[in-house]
Parts: sequence; structure tokens; C-alpha cells
Amino acid sequence: MTEIDVKQRVLAANAAAADALRAAFRATGTLVVNIISSPGSGKTTLLEVTARALKSRLRLGGIDGDIATERDAERLRSAGIPARQILTGGACHLDARQIEKALGEEGPRLAGLDVLFIENVGNLICPTSYDLGEDFKVVLLSLVEGDDKPLKYPAIFARAAVTVITKADLLPHVDFDLSAVRRQVAALNPSGRFLVTSARSGEGMETWYAMLEEELAVKRGAPVQVEVVP
Amino acid sequence: MTEIDVKQRVLAANAAAADALRAAFRATGTLVVNIISSPGSGKTTLLEVTARALKSRLRLGGIDGDIATERDAERLRSAGIPARQILTGGACHLDARQIEKALGEEGPRLAGLDVLFIENVGNLICPTSYDLGEDFKVVLLSLVEGDDKPLKYPAIFARAAVTVITKADLLPHVDFDLSAVRRQVAALNPSGRFLVTSARSGEGMETWYAMLEEELAVKRGAPVQVEVVP
Repeated sequence: MTEIDVKQRVLAANAAAADALRAAFRATGTLVVNIISSPGSGKTTLLEVTARALKSRLRLGGIDGDIATERDAERLRSAGIPARQILTGGACHLDARQIEKALGEEGPRLAGLDVLFIENVGNLICPTSYDLGEDFKVVLLSLVEGDDKPLKYPAIFARAAVTVITKADLLPHVDFDLSAVRRQVAALNPSGRFLVTSARSGEGMETWYAMLEEELAVKRGAPVQVEVVP
Repeated sequence: MTEIDVKQRVLAANAAAADALRAAFRATGTLVVNIISSPGSGKTTLLEVTARALKSRLRLGGIDGDIATERDAERLRSAGIPARQILTGGACHLDARQIEKALGEEGPRLAGLDVLFIENVGNLICPTSYDLGEDFKVVLLSLVEGDDKPLKYPAIFARAAVTVITKADLLPHVDFDLSAVRRQVAALNPSGRFLVTSARSGEGMETWYAMLEEELAVKRGAPVQVEVVP
């Protein structure tokens, strides 16, 4: 069995587990958002601010993937929402079975949520291939990372339904061509959404919250798919 | 054959190729530096500035790993040094055989250099395990990425001989506890060096250049290891 065979077998097993998760999340009407970025782009900060803003009207929860430390889940719990840390022990992404296991162990605290945020391991490459049963992927790009990143990491920017530019408050202090990035993302992903945010200044955050509420409403309001036997 | 068996076989083959590279670099007296960081920490910018500063007195060259685009090698060539782009086609790190192949194809332009910089794929995790025949690894951390990163990605900070903090000019605009990061790195890697730099302002760059020249001198001046048969 070659390296490629093993990778395909792993991805097939992951896809089956992700399908089971997706069915479970459909049953509970939970919107699941898989958040992916480089280390330090601001995933946890975005979720902390979101938790503080929305927790009074939505039941939110988080699953945080990291190589080491419980720090991110602790930050979300401090922001007032239940959160579970998964330590991947060196693996550069989360997989669907880890999500299944975390949900099982966490029990009622992560059951029946309105929105479950999955904060993936800080990495723009590996998490791209692993379906976690989410409704959509969100990719974050801090504008300090440079305006060539969508072209250099095209897979995640093509697959994420939403690109969130973070740390917009730093724009005056760095060289970053926002319109160039917008064009790159539009070329890779014509139907994707593109938000510019700063968790610090609050810029763009209302748009982000509105988008989450809209997606949740769509998920819950959409007519049930009926299988018609001809 | 399990996933773990395949990984071990891949790493063993990589180690053999890396040993051959290391012998070749020893023969030519080339200092080889494997540079690792998240996307957008400033690897290419550090090398551009270094190329401009040192190319009149040292023969420098670069090998750039990326998922997509020739952009980084082009930037180094524009800075006046030979550079070869390796596109990994989705893989999240470079391996020793890719370096061997690139050196073979590039021929004389990358032969007999004083210093060869290998700019790895933007990723704090995957490149850690792959020896490329280098003298040492350097990990970059932009201070915009947050002051918890050494603890969250301990393997690379433990293995890199040098930690380079980048974008120090942005310190007034972000929350970053430099002394906390220094303590984290010292705990993970007591013998490692720790530099604070800004390619934009020039802060710390002379220390970086001096370190490269010192390491080159050590490599060339160190007495040849003689195997004594008892």
C-alpha cells in the first residue's frame, strides 16, 4: 500500500464520519462553522468577541484544535460559552472522528446548540481536505500576513464559503493591497463572501454576526429534502 | 501497512537523502539554513533584505517551497541572488529529495554557495519533521501572531537553533508580551538563540547578519572530524 493509497483510505473514512456528523447536526438544527487560518490570524479572538456579542440570544459552543495547550478552549469558556479542546498530538488538522469523540465526551453541553464553531489547528494547508460535517468553512487572513496569500494557498480560499480579513485596524501600519486580495479571492471563489473585520475596533463585526444569523435561519427554514420514489 | 508505518518509511527515506545532502554541503563548505514559519511571518522579506545587505561579500542562494506561485523565488532573484522555486503540489513541507532534485536541475548557479537559504512552505507544523540536510533550522514568529505561539507549536521552537521575532516595528500597535515569548522559547530550547528584528526598520538585522557569518566561519574553520581507528 503506497502513501497515496493510505491517504485516500484515511480521507474516505473521514468522509463517512463527516456525513454522520452532518446528519446529526441537521437533526438538531445546529449551524456548524469550520474556521481555518494560519497560526495567529485571530481565530480565537474572533470567536471570543462573537461569543460576548451573541451569547445572550444564541446558544453557542466551540471545539478548538491545537497541537498543544488548552488555552483556546479556556479563552472561549472565559467568554461565556462551552468549549472543548482537542489536542492533536502533532497532527496538522482536525478530523471528523475527533469531533464525534469530543461531542460524545462533552455530552449535553455541546448538544442542541444553535451554532457550533470548530476552530481548526492553525494551518492553511492540511485542514483543507478534511470535512468535519460543517455547513461551511471560513478562512481568516490577517492583513499582516501579506496580500499574496490567496494565490499561494489557493485550495482553502477556493473552498471556504467566507473569507474574513482580520486585524483591519492595522491597515495604516502595513503594506497590504486589500483590493488585490479581494480580486484574488473572487477569481478563486466567485460565489464566496468577503468580509473585512477588526475584532479590536469592531469594524465589520455586525456583518459577521448578521451572516451567522442568516445562515442559521436558512438552515432551519429550508424545506426538508424529501426523497421521492418514482 | 498502517498510516504510521508509511510515515516512518517516508521519514527514514528522507533522513537518508538528507544525510547525503549534508555530506555534499560539508564538501563545498556551504552553510544551509532551513527557514520555517507560518504563512506571512516574513520569511521572504527577511531573505530579500539579507540578500541586498550581504550579496556583495557572500555568495548567497535560495530555494523556496510553496503550494503555488513562483513569487518567492522571483522576489529573491529581484534582490540579486539565484533562487529556485519548488512547488509542492499540496504538500505542507519540503523534503530532502526535492532539495536534491532542485540543486541538480539548477546546476552551477546553486553550487558552491557560501550560504543557501531554504525557505520552507508556510507552516509551523509539517516542516518540523523533515531534515533537509541543513546546518540548522530558524523559526520566524511575527509579533502580530500573538505571544502564545511557542507553547502552542512547541516542536519547532524546541528544534530551531534560532528564533527570529519579525515585524518588531509593529510592537506599538499590537498586544504582544515579548518577554513572555522569550521565556517560552528559553524553556523549550535553552541553548537556542533569540533575535528581535524588523526588516522594515532594520532593527536586529546586523545581529542576524553577524550570526550567519559566524556560523559560516565555524563551519569552515572547525577542525575536520578524523575517525580514529583504535
